[in-house]
Amino acid sequence: MKVPFKPGTLIYPLPAIMVSCGNSPENYNIITVAWTGTICSDPAMCYVSIRKERHSHDLIKETGEFVINITTEALAKATDWCGVRSGRDYNKFKEMHLTPQQGQVVKAPLIAESPLNIECKVVEIKELGSHDMFIAEVVAVNAEEKLIDKSTGAFQLNHAKPLAYSHGKYYGLGEKLGSFGFSVAKRKK
Amino acid sequence: MKVPFKPGTLIYPLPAIMVSCGNSPENYNIITVAWTGTICSDPAMCYVSIRKERHSHDLIKETGEFVINITTEALAKATDWCGVRSGRDYNKFKEMHLTPQQGQVVKAPLIAESPLNIECKVVEIKELGSHDMFIAEVVAVNAEEKLIDKSTGAFQLNHAKPLAYSHGKYYGLGEKLGSFGFSVAKRKK
Repeated sequence: MKVPFKPGTLIYPLPAIMVSCGNSPENYNIITVAWTGTICSDPAMCYVSIRKERHSHDLIKETGEFVINITTEALAKATDWCGVRSGRDYNKFKEMHLTPQQGQVVKAPLIAESPLNIECKVVEIKELGSHDMFIAEVVAVNAEEKLIDKSTGAFQLNHAKPLAYSHGKYYGLGEKLGSFGFSVAKRKK
Repeated sequence: MKVPFKPGTLIYPLPAIMVSCGNSPENYNIITVAWTGTICSDPAMCYVSIRKERHSHDLIKETGEFVINITTEALAKATDWCGVRSGRDYNKFKEMHLTPQQGQVVKAPLIAESPLNIECKVVEIKELGSHDMFIAEVVAVNAEEKLIDKSTGAFQLNHAKPLAYSHGKYYGLGEKLGSFGFSVAKRKK
C-alpha cells in the first residue's frame, strides 16, 4: 500500500564525496556533497549542487574548478566532518589529517587519501533555489596505482570500499548481487 | 601513489533506479538509470540523463513526465533487465511481473513493487552529448506504508534494502558506519 509523502529529495543510495577546491594552499578547502552524479558519458560530465551560503560555493565560483574525491569506509569520519564544519572556521585538510596533492590540470588540490580524484572544470552554474548546480566537465582522473589490476589494466574501485550515503546514514557496500547485464547473461556467474 | 587514468565517469556508488514513463497502458515503459540524483533541496529537484536513442527518451520528451522508482535488493534482476532490454521489443512491466499503479499527479505509472515512487515533471532538457539531461521538479512522492514508523511518522527507506550500483556491479548496503553528523556528536551511539 502506498501513501502520499511530502515531495522531497529521496533518491538513494548516493555517493558521499569530498569536493576539494581553492587555488593555493592558503585557501584550500573541502566540502562533502551527496547532491552529485554523472550527467553525460561522452564528454564525461558531472555536477555538484552546493548551497550559496557554503564557504566552498564562492571558492568554486571564483576559480571555476573543483576535484571530486571518492570516499571510502576508512574516510567515513572525515567525510562526515567535512560536511558539517565550515572552511571559514577550520583548515579541513589539517584537522582531518588529509594531504593536498597537485593535480594534472586544475589548481584545486587532490585529496591523497582518496582512491580516485576526478578533476573538474565548471561549464555552467545553474541557480535552482536552495542550491546552485555546478555543471562541469571531467578534465583529468587520478587513480590509486594499487587498485589497478596489473594484468588487465582495469581500475578496481570497489576494492577501495567506497562509501555510500542513504537517507541520513553512511554505509559500506554489502553483498554483490550481480554485474551489469547479469539478468541476460547466458552463463551464470 | 596516483597515476593518470582516462577522464571518465567514475562517481560511485550510485542509485540504480527504475524510471517509469508513458501516459497510457499501451505505451508504459521502464528504463534503468544510474545517471540520476538530487540537484536542489528546495524546491525538490532531480535529474535523469538518458541517451537520445533510448525508447524512453522520446516518451519522456513528449509527455514531460516520469517517475523515479527506488529499487531494492529483491528488484535487482528486474532493475538490470530493464536497463539492458528495450521497450521497443518488450512490455517491461509484463515481462518482469511489475505492476503499474496510478500516481497522484502525473500520468506516468508508479511501479507498485518499489518502496518509493517520486513523481517528476520535466522543466528543462539539456543536450550534453551522448546523454540528454532531463531536469525535473518533484511534484509528488508515494511511500510504502509499511516503511513508515507509526510512532514518529519517519519513512525508513533503508529498511527496504535499497540497491546501489558501483562501477559495473550491483550491491546491497553493508555495515552502517554512522548517521549524518556523527563525527561531531557529543554522545556516541
